[in-house]
Amino acid sequence: MGMLQKCTRLSLRSTYMWSVCPQYSTAVAARETQDRALIVQWTQHRGVHNSRRLGANPVNPSAAPPRLPFSRVTQEDLSFFRALLPGRTITDPDLLKSSNVDWLKTVQGSSDVLLRPKTAEEVSEVLRYCNERNLAVCPQGGNTGLVGGSVPVFDEIILSTSLMNQVIAFDNISGILTCQAGCVLENLSHYLEERDFIMPLDLGAKGSCHIGGNVSTNAGGLRLLRYGSLRGTVLGLEVVLADGRVLNCLATLRKDNTGYDLKQLFIGSEGTLGVITAVSILCPRKPKAVNVAFLECPFYIIIETAGSNATHDEEKLHHFLEEVMTSSLVTDGTVATEATKIKALWSLRERVTEALTHEGYTYKYDISLPVGKIYDLVQDMRRHLGDMAKNVVGYGHVGDGNLHLNITSSSKDPALLAAIEPYVYEWTSQWKGSISAEHGLGLKKRNYIYYSKPSEAVALMGSIKAMLDPKGILNPYKTLPDNIN
Amino acid sequence: MGMLQKCTRLSLRSTYMWSVCPQYSTAVAARETQDRALIVQWTQHRGVHNSRRLGANPVNPSAAPPRLPFSRVTQEDLSFFRALLPGRTITDPDLLKSSNVDWLKTVQGSSDVLLRPKTAEEVSEVLRYCNERNLAVCPQGGNTGLVGGSVPVFDEIILSTSLMNQVIAFDNISGILTCQAGCVLENLSHYLEERDFIMPLDLGAKGSCHIGGNVSTNAGGLRLLRYGSLRGTVLGLEVVLADGRVLNCLATLRKDNTGYDLKQLFIGSEGTLGVITAVSILCPRKPKAVNVAFLECPFYIIIETAGSNATHDEEKLHHFLEEVMTSSLVTDGTVATEATKIKALWSLRERVTEALTHEGYTYKYDISLPVGKIYDLVQDMRRHLGDMAKNVVGYGHVGDGNLHLNITSSSKDPALLAAIEPYVYEWTSQWKGSISAEHGLGLKKRNYIYYSKPSEAVALMGSIKAMLDPKGILNPYKTLPDNIN
Repeated sequence: MGMLQKCTRLSLRSTYMWSVCPQYSTAVAARETQDRALIVQWTQHRGVHNSRRLGANPVNPSAAPPRLPFSRVTQEDLSFFRALLPGRTITDPDLLKSSNVDWLKTVQGSSDVLLRPKTAEEVSEVLRYCNERNLAVCPQGGNTGLVGGSVPVFDEIILSTSLMNQVIAFDNISGILTCQAGCVLENLSHYLEERDFIMPLDLGAKGSCHIGGNVSTNAGGLRLLRYGSLRGTVLGLEVVLADGRVLNCLATLRKDNTGYDLKQLFIGSEGTLGVITAVSILCPRKPKAVNVAFLECPFYIIIETAGSNATHDEEKLHHFLEEVMTSSLVTDGTVATEATKIKALWSLRERVTEALTHEGYTYKYDISLPVGKIYDLVQDMRRHLGDMAKNVVGYGHVGDGNLHLNITSSSKDPALLAAIEPYVYEWTSQWKGSISAEHGLGLKKRNYIYYSKPSEAVALMGSIKAMLDPKGILNPYKTLPDNIN
Repeated sequence: MGMLQKCTRLSLRSTYMWSVCPQYSTAVAARETQDRALIVQWTQHRGVHNSRRLGANPVNPSAAPPRLPFSRVTQEDLSFFRALLPGRTITDPDLLKSSNVDWLKTVQGSSDVLLRPKTAEEVSEVLRYCNERNLAVCPQGGNTGLVGGSVPVFDEIILSTSLMNQVIAFDNISGILTCQAGCVLENLSHYLEERDFIMPLDLGAKGSCHIGGNVSTNAGGLRLLRYGSLRGTVLGLEVVLADGRVLNCLATLRKDNTGYDLKQLFIGSEGTLGVITAVSILCPRKPKAVNVAFLECPFYIIIETAGSNATHDEEKLHHFLEEVMTSSLVTDGTVATEATKIKALWSLRERVTEALTHEGYTYKYDISLPVGKIYDLVQDMRRHLGDMAKNVVGYGHVGDGNLHLNITSSSKDPALLAAIEPYVYEWTSQWKGSISAEHGLGLKKRNYIYYSKPSEAVALMGSIKAMLDPKGILNPYKTLPDNIN
């Protein structure tokens, strides 16, 4: 872990680590030279305790619960929507297909209606109506989520932000951007780069994901280590509540201590408390110098530096590399400063997810652990699963203590799943980690929340949900566990 | 504003600007060479609208409302507290004096009981009892607040965090510190500096203020520009709710997306929703090189740089200074790298508040504005008040768009106050600023909240308060306005 420890001490833009399956050209085999003995005292108590609390499906807590007694969409409802959103009330099954299934093709909904409002006022009208009619609504951005949070589970109306894609304002003194929720992250990046700024977040899904979805899921990504979380960089939100009230907290101030910071309720609550319709966000200056180092040791590591002076940054990086090579922490590597080579190095990382899809079926876990423990879970899981799994692959964000654990098999395998869960959650809980570092809970992880949150906290979540959305129409079956004490 | 604009583009640790009254040796006269014409179209509408909403005292909305019908402390209550906190249940009027009045001596309470718990369990017992008995409680840290938020208004029981002053853990890989709420900020700074880290926040009041109070008020301070707000750096909280429930959200993870981020509710809510008993916070590495530049132009500006390489930082600073001197943005200045000289330069800024107390009485405002507007308010206020004020002084955090506006007179002057308020709030509201950037609302600013927050947001604040503290025993008369729609 010496290397990992070292990396976290640097003031870097992002630090990546991964080891991947050897079969694919986009990924390279991890060489683990020092598989250290794992000494883990298992306490089964918490797991047993938790398993009692799981939902309607004790065999697979990730599966959908029974449909809740919401109304079903009638012809009268469709007439209302068509009058409100002419040409933007989609009912053609072919056009609805891609919105009914998640990117991983693991959750399949059966919604008959997709609405595409352009303004907060239209969202307000839709929600006021749905709340009165007791119609369930699934807000959807770029539909790039990994936990089944952005697709309907049953026949919820899909409320898409895709046409809410306008930049509202940009202040090139403060770097504060205000835009609608449906702006695609990559488009915002291009917009800002032309103005000598960058977005404070960057993700593999940037070409599709919406900023509103990023905020709703409190997306982490590649720049968190350098620019901090969205809880610090998001300065304001406009949100439509379940009953149609518009909450305008779209401030563009770095400091505002006038009462409770309500916008925080909607960051990371996955559309269960309100629909984000606009965002203001603090954007950093575009760095003048960028270096990307790709290093080999027992792990492959990507380090990106970003600064204002190329000579200074190269000197610092050179000094660091000299130190880690001399001390044999690193055995080999390459450094890139040109955009094309930088892109090529990053694509090695960004294509890992895609590469894994070729294995057949992937069980995905997104875990936070104390940095010193981050890879122990991969090694222990390999021993624990033995031949049952095709591959146990660990990559992630070292500096953030965030491990993406991927376990592959030729096809869906209930026996393998039973060996993984709740083992992986118990392991994480044992080290006070998070069972969802950046992906959220969505449908799939909702019932595992007690591994990372005490029951008092989950109960309070339930109270907040009941306060803001008493009929529970907003993104039902997501985030909150089926049973709240 | 050229200089100000310039400063915000640098990657600096902190940027300060001020102009102060010429009478005091600790402060130097501002020379405003370019008082530009102010073109402000006043819209009185919002001010009129808001003034209708003000509380029980229409003449002075900062004043205390009538006492609410809480129980009064009985001998039986005292017996309970003495049994729970032997030797730590203070009733001696002399010992209570300093806890009954705020640092500015503008709010005077009349509490007869000061409790000094050492653990969250003791806080829990106290609150459970007070909630059952309907006894009001005023949580108190270092009592350094400027808006009357940390002292009782009437006879509320004072719940002090001063004996909850233990460091619980520090991880020198991740830089994550976990400690009790009553740790003094400066003590934590010393603790960390010995371990080659620093706190992500620094304030003038560091010698007295408690970290729990800092978090409860979402303190800003000198390092916000560089390390971001507490909403990003605070990773976990332990909080005792009004009914005594202990909410353990004391995570030490940089990423955790398992449900709603409940700790955010307690950051900046000024003890009205719960009592923070422990904090975990992400601390940056101690910088290896620090430079402080003190520059003169129309304004005095302090710029602090912090980096890992002294030569690089000096080179960058030198380059910047050359540019601003050549272009006449800056006329004169000095740069310090030694600790004593750095301290001397900072003390010029840190002693402004103290210097102002010599003027007699100070009306203090803590305003956020778009950076380009930050000093216009000072100039306009001078014109507006004319001879009524002794001095109109503006200083603050340029990079954060945060102006500390101080208006002095020989003694309290109702006519002056009437000329300042609501004028200053209307001005701020006009530019979509915040009427409390970092000081909070406390008692004094509670009724002005509508100048910065829409009524829907204030109503939602009221719902949250009712949910978490249905009897309203926690820090009553603070933060929330007297009348909520």
